[in-house]
Amino acid sequence: MDASHTAHPEISSESGTEVRPAPGGAAGSRDTGRDDFRRELGQQLRVDAVRCSAAAGSGHPTSSMSAADLMAVLLDGYLRMDLGALDDPRNDHLIFSKGHASPLYYAMLVAAGSVSEEALLTFRRLGSRLEGHPTPRIPPTDVATGSLGQGLPIGVGIAEEIRRLEHVPSRVWVLCGDSEMAEGSIWEAFQHAGWAELDRLTVIIDVNRLGQTRQTMLGWDLEAYVRRAEAFGWHAIAVDGHDVAAIDSAYAEAVATVGRPTVVIARTIKGKGVAAVENKNGKHGKPLEDPEGAIAELGGVRHLRVGLSLPPGPSDGAGSSGSSGRVGADAVRVALPSWPVGESVATRQAYGEALTALGDVRDDVVALDGEVSNSTGTEAFARAHPERYFEMFIAEQQLVASAVGMSVRGRVAFASTFAAFFTRAYDFIRMAAVSRADLRLVGSHAGVSIGEDGPSQMALEDIAMMRAVHGSAVLHPSDANQTAQLLAEMADRPGISYLRTLRGATTVRTPPEEPVRIGGSRLVRSGEHDDVTIVACGVTVDEAVAASVVLRAEGIEVRILDCYSVEPIDAAALRAAAGQTRLVVTVEDHWPQGGLGEAVAAALAQTPAHPPVVRLAVRTMPASATPREQRALAGIDAEAIAATVRAELSRAEGEPHRLSR
Amino acid sequence: MDASHTAHPEISSESGTEVRPAPGGAAGSRDTGRDDFRRELGQQLRVDAVRCSAAAGSGHPTSSMSAADLMAVLLDGYLRMDLGALDDPRNDHLIFSKGHASPLYYAMLVAAGSVSEEALLTFRRLGSRLEGHPTPRIPPTDVATGSLGQGLPIGVGIAEEIRRLEHVPSRVWVLCGDSEMAEGSIWEAFQHAGWAELDRLTVIIDVNRLGQTRQTMLGWDLEAYVRRAEAFGWHAIAVDGHDVAAIDSAYAEAVATVGRPTVVIARTIKGKGVAAVENKNGKHGKPLEDPEGAIAELGGVRHLRVGLSLPPGPSDGAGSSGSSGRVGADAVRVALPSWPVGESVATRQAYGEALTALGDVRDDVVALDGEVSNSTGTEAFARAHPERYFEMFIAEQQLVASAVGMSVRGRVAFASTFAAFFTRAYDFIRMAAVSRADLRLVGSHAGVSIGEDGPSQMALEDIAMMRAVHGSAVLHPSDANQTAQLLAEMADRPGISYLRTLRGATTVRTPPEEPVRIGGSRLVRSGEHDDVTIVACGVTVDEAVAASVVLRAEGIEVRILDCYSVEPIDAAALRAAAGQTRLVVTVEDHWPQGGLGEAVAAALAQTPAHPPVVRLAVRTMPASATPREQRALAGIDAEAIAATVRAELSRAEGEPHRLSR
Repeated sequence: MDASHTAHPEISSESGTEVRPAPGGAAGSRDTGRDDFRRELGQQLRVDAVRCSAAAGSGHPTSSMSAADLMAVLLDGYLRMDLGALDDPRNDHLIFSKGHASPLYYAMLVAAGSVSEEALLTFRRLGSRLEGHPTPRIPPTDVATGSLGQGLPIGVGIAEEIRRLEHVPSRVWVLCGDSEMAEGSIWEAFQHAGWAELDRLTVIIDVNRLGQTRQTMLGWDLEAYVRRAEAFGWHAIAVDGHDVAAIDSAYAEAVATVGRPTVVIARTIKGKGVAAVENKNGKHGKPLEDPEGAIAELGGVRHLRVGLSLPPGPSDGAGSSGSSGRVGADAVRVALPSWPVGESVATRQAYGEALTALGDVRDDVVALDGEVSNSTGTEAFARAHPERYFEMFIAEQQLVASAVGMSVRGRVAFASTFAAFFTRAYDFIRMAAVSRADLRLVGSHAGVSIGEDGPSQMALEDIAMMRAVHGSAVLHPSDANQTAQLLAEMADRPGISYLRTLRGATTVRTPPEEPVRIGGSRLVRSGEHDDVTIVACGVTVDEAVAASVVLRAEGIEVRILDCYSVEPIDAAALRAAAGQTRLVVTVEDHWPQGGLGEAVAAALAQTPAHPPVVRLAVRTMPASATPREQRALAGIDAEAIAATVRAELSRAEGEPHRLSR
Repeated sequence: MDASHTAHPEISSESGTEVRPAPGGAAGSRDTGRDDFRRELGQQLRVDAVRCSAAAGSGHPTSSMSAADLMAVLLDGYLRMDLGALDDPRNDHLIFSKGHASPLYYAMLVAAGSVSEEALLTFRRLGSRLEGHPTPRIPPTDVATGSLGQGLPIGVGIAEEIRRLEHVPSRVWVLCGDSEMAEGSIWEAFQHAGWAELDRLTVIIDVNRLGQTRQTMLGWDLEAYVRRAEAFGWHAIAVDGHDVAAIDSAYAEAVATVGRPTVVIARTIKGKGVAAVENKNGKHGKPLEDPEGAIAELGGVRHLRVGLSLPPGPSDGAGSSGSSGRVGADAVRVALPSWPVGESVATRQAYGEALTALGDVRDDVVALDGEVSNSTGTEAFARAHPERYFEMFIAEQQLVASAVGMSVRGRVAFASTFAAFFTRAYDFIRMAAVSRADLRLVGSHAGVSIGEDGPSQMALEDIAMMRAVHGSAVLHPSDANQTAQLLAEMADRPGISYLRTLRGATTVRTPPEEPVRIGGSRLVRSGEHDDVTIVACGVTVDEAVAASVVLRAEGIEVRILDCYSVEPIDAAALRAAAGQTRLVVTVEDHWPQGGLGEAVAAALAQTPAHPPVVRLAVRTMPASATPREQRALAGIDAEAIAATVRAELSRAEGEPHRLSR
C-alpha cells in the first residue's frame, strides 16, 4: 500500500472550528481520534448538504446524507489531488456518478477549501458554478453527471487510459447510487473494467435502498450486489456505510488490490442523521422541511477543513503523454494520405488510413471501436498502433464513455462503430456536450446504400441525432480526400464532432491540395447560367453528378454543391448558389427529418424570395436489396434527381411566378 | 412438465426425404431415434443456411451453423406454435436476438413448412420477405432484430405481459449470441426478468466464442456466464450445444423451472460441420467460399419437415384480453378529463389523469415507467390500475423494450420517463420502427423550462430525435386539454408516437370541446391584417401570447399558431398563415436543429416567396436558474419574441423587398 494512504492529511487552519485528529497508530490498531474527525466531517457534509438545498429550495439532500460518511473517509486520507495544480496527471479523479448528490459533492469542495461557504449557498442559482448536477464548470469536476449510469463508464475510460498509457499513480474513485445499478451501462462498465483488470478503479455504491418512488430491486441485499460484481471479475467488499473504521479498511483493501477493480458496497440510510427523513419514502429530491431543526439534530454547523493528500512521485508531469504528441498542422497535412482524382475508394477505408497516418505523427491520438474495426476501417490503426487501440466489444455506451474518459486525460480519442449503433449511446453523446468534452465519433455504413443487410444496420437518423447535439460538427464527406482532411480538422476541434462514412466506394473528386474545412462546402460543378442547384453529400454527390450529365444533354444546366459539412452548413455558399438558380434540390441518404434537406431549408429560410427547395430523402422503410436498388427505391439516385428537376422546371413554366431567377 | 413437451411432434410428409423418429421412450431412457432425427435436422439447418447465404452472396452462415443443433431440438419438441393461427395467444414466441443468424431462422421456417425452399433462396433479394435480418414482414417474426442486445429485452416484455396479465401457457424462447452479452441492455433484461420471476422465459446463448474480429471477452468460459446469470436471479444450465440429448435435457429443465427464468448456456463451434470455416477467425458475416463442398461435407441437402407442437389448452383465445378492452371513440372522449379555459395545469399532470381515465374504459391500456412515475404523472395510473402498471426502474432500454414486447401481445402500452432520458433508448425506438411496432412514449420535463436541475435533466434534442424515427408522430401540447385529446389519439394510432410534456403549469386555452388531432394545429389568435405569424408549441405558446399583448399595444398585429403536432406538422395551416403575414417567427424550448423551427422552414421551403422565417430556439448550454430566467437567457420568452418581431419588421422597412404581404 502506498505510503500516502496511511499518512495523515494536513488539516488546514484557515478559519473556524477544526478538529485535528491524533497521530495515526500502527496498522491494526484503531486510530480513534481520526475516526472521530471523520465522523465529524461526515456530519459537516450532511449539514452543508441540508444548508445548500434549503437555500436553493430544491436539490437532493437525503441522497447526499446517505453517502456522507463514505465521502468523509475518502476525502480524509484517500483522495489524492493537488487542487492548485489540476492539470497534474498524478491527481486522482473523483466522479459522482449519482450526480444528484451534488449537495454532498459541493460540501466536499467546501471541506477541501476549494469552494467557500458563501459560494455553497449559491447552489442552483443563476450564475453559480454550483449547478443542480455537477458539471466541469466547477473544478475539479471532470465530466457532467446527472443522467444516471454514466459516471462509472466514463471512470472506466479514465482508468483504462491510466493503466494502458500512463506511468502515474493516479486512481479513479466513483460514487454510484444503488438506483443507477439498474442501468445497463453500469454493467457494460463492470464487464469492461473486469476484463481490462483496471485495478486503479474503485467504485463505491451508496446502497440507501430507496429510489425516487420506492425501494430498489435489490433493497439492502448487499450480498446480491457482491455476487454480481464478483461474477464480472471484480473484488467486492460489503460494508456498513456509516462505520468510518470499516469504510477505511475497505478503501485500504481496494487500494491494495492488484489486477482487479474493487467495488465497496455500502449499506447506508437515506437521510441519515435526521429522523424526519431517515429511511423514509417520499423524501427524494426535495429540501428538508425544517432545515434549522435538522442542522441542530446533526450537531450544528461545522467549519472543518481537510488538506487533500498530494499525489506521490515527481511533479514534472512525466508519464503523461497526453499533450506531448501534438505536432503542427503542417506536419499533419504532409502526413495525410491522398488519392488521385477519379479513383474509387470507400470513405471508411480512407478514414482508417488517415487515422493511422495521424497516429504516426501524433502520439496523443487513440482509437476505440465497438468490435467492428474491420468494417469501420479502424483496424488499420489497430495494426499500426496496437498500444493505442482500445477494443470496446459490442457495448456502444461504454465505447463512447471511454472516449470521453480518455479525452479527460488529454487524449485525442476517435470512437467508431456502425453509424446506426451510435443511437445506442445517444444519451452519452448528449451528456458529453454538457461535459464540454472533446469527442470524436466516426460512424460507418450510413444510409440505405449499405444494401442487403437491411434497415437494422442502416443509419438513417444519425445526421438528425448528431446535429441536435449542442456545438456539434456533422461531417459527411463524399470522397476519400475530403475524409482525410476532415479527420485532421476533427483532431484539432474542441467539442463533439461526427464523421459519417460509407460502406461502398465513391469517386474521388476533390483534389488532394484543395482545402476542405468544417463549415465549408465544395462546388462540384457550375456554369454561368445554371437552372438548378443540387445540394448533396456523401454518396449522393455521385448520383447528382450522374444526373447532371443526363440533364445537361437535355439542355438543363446544373450546379452541384457538396455540403460535406452538414453542421455547421455553409450558409453563404447555399445562399449564393440559390440566388443564381431557379430551383434547389437537396438529396440525401437519410430520413427527411433533421438531415441535409432541413439544414438547407433552415439556412435559406430567412433569405427573401429564395427559389423553391425540393428535398429528396428516404421516405419508406427499406428492406434488403443491392445498394443501387436501394437508392432507386428511395428516390435518391440519379434518375430520381433528374426526374425531379425536370418535373419542377416544367411545373414552373406553368406557374411562371414560381421559379424566377 | 407439460405433456406436450414429451410428446412427439408430427412429422409432415408433404415432400422429399423425411426421417420419422422412433416413438419416445419413458423418462430417463434415451430416445436414440429422436436424437438421430434432431442431428439430421441440425445438419439440414446448416445446409440451408449455407445455401441461402451462397445464393445471396452475403449473410452470416457461420453464426447460423453454431446454433443449428440448439434450434433443431427447439423446433422438434419444444416450440409450440400454430403456424396457421398466429393470433392465437397460446402460441410460443421465438426471438432471434442474434438477428444476423437469419439464415438459420429462415432454415427453421423451411423445416416448419411455412417457407418454401424456393423462397429460401430469395434471401436478401429485392422484394423478398427474407431480409438480411428478420423483420415482422415474415411471419411468425414478432419484432425486427439485427441491432444486437434488443431481442432479449423485448422477450422480457412479452414474458412479463404473459405472466402478469394472461392465463395462457405461452412461453418465450430467445436465441442470443455471445457477442451481444456485452450490451448493457442484456443485463437490464437479466435483471428485470430475474426480479419479475419470469419463468415463462428461456434464453439460449450460442457461445461460439468468436465475434466479428476476435474472441469475445469470456471466450468459452461457460462458468463465467453461469455465475453472472445466477447472480441476476436466473436458473442457468451449461451444455454442449452440439449434444442434442444434453440440449433436450436442458430445455426440459427450463420448462420445469418455476419462479425463475432459465438460461441455457451452450458451448458451440462457429461454422460447425465445415472444416474450412469451423472455429476460425475471419469467417464472420460472409458466405462460404465453397458452398457445394460444404453442403457435401454436411451430408447433402435434406428435406426434413417438422410439424410444430400446438399450444395446449382451449383454442378459443380465452385468457388473452389484449383486444377485449377496446371501446368506441365516443366512450373514450366522454371519459377524458377536461379543464376549464384559463386554469393553470402542467401537461404532465394532465397526461397522468387522462391516461388513468383511458385505462378506466379500456383494459388493454398498460403503463410502464422508469421509476419516476411521480414526476411523469404516471403515478395516477399506477394507483388506479396497479395490475396494469409496470415498474421498470432506472433502465430506459428495458422500459422501451418492454413496451414493444407488450405491443406484440396486443397491449396499448404507454412508456414514460423524463424526455431527456429517452435518448438512452434511441436505438430501441429506431428498431421499433423497423418492427412496425405500436409504441407510445411520453417524455416529461422538456426543455430549459424545468429550471434549476440543469442541462442533464433537460430534453433539448428530443423533438429532433423523435421526428427522425420513421413514421413517428411528435406531439407537444401547450395545455391540459390538448394533452388529453392527443393521448386518446395516440392510443389508436399505429406506429411510433411521442408526447412531450412540461414540468411547469401552462394556461389552458383550448376549449374542451375543440377537436385536437395528430397533424393539426390551433390558431390561438388572428386578426384581419396581421403583420407576423408566431409559431409556437408547448410552453412557448404562453410566451407568444404574452408577446402579442405587448406588440399589439405598439400597433403590431400578431397571429399565433400553436403547432402542437410537430410531426406531422400542419403544413396547410402554416402556408395559409405565412401567406397572410409578412414575417414568420418560430419559438421553441429545444435546440435549433431538427425541432419546430426546422420543421416549419421545411414545410414552407417549396412555397414560392414565403415570408422570412426567423427561428428562436435554445442556442447556448443552460445551467441552473429558475424557469423564467432560463427562457429569458435562451431568448425564447415573451420579451425575446417581441424584440425579434420589432427588429425584423423595422429591418424590413429599410429593405422593402424583404417583407411584403
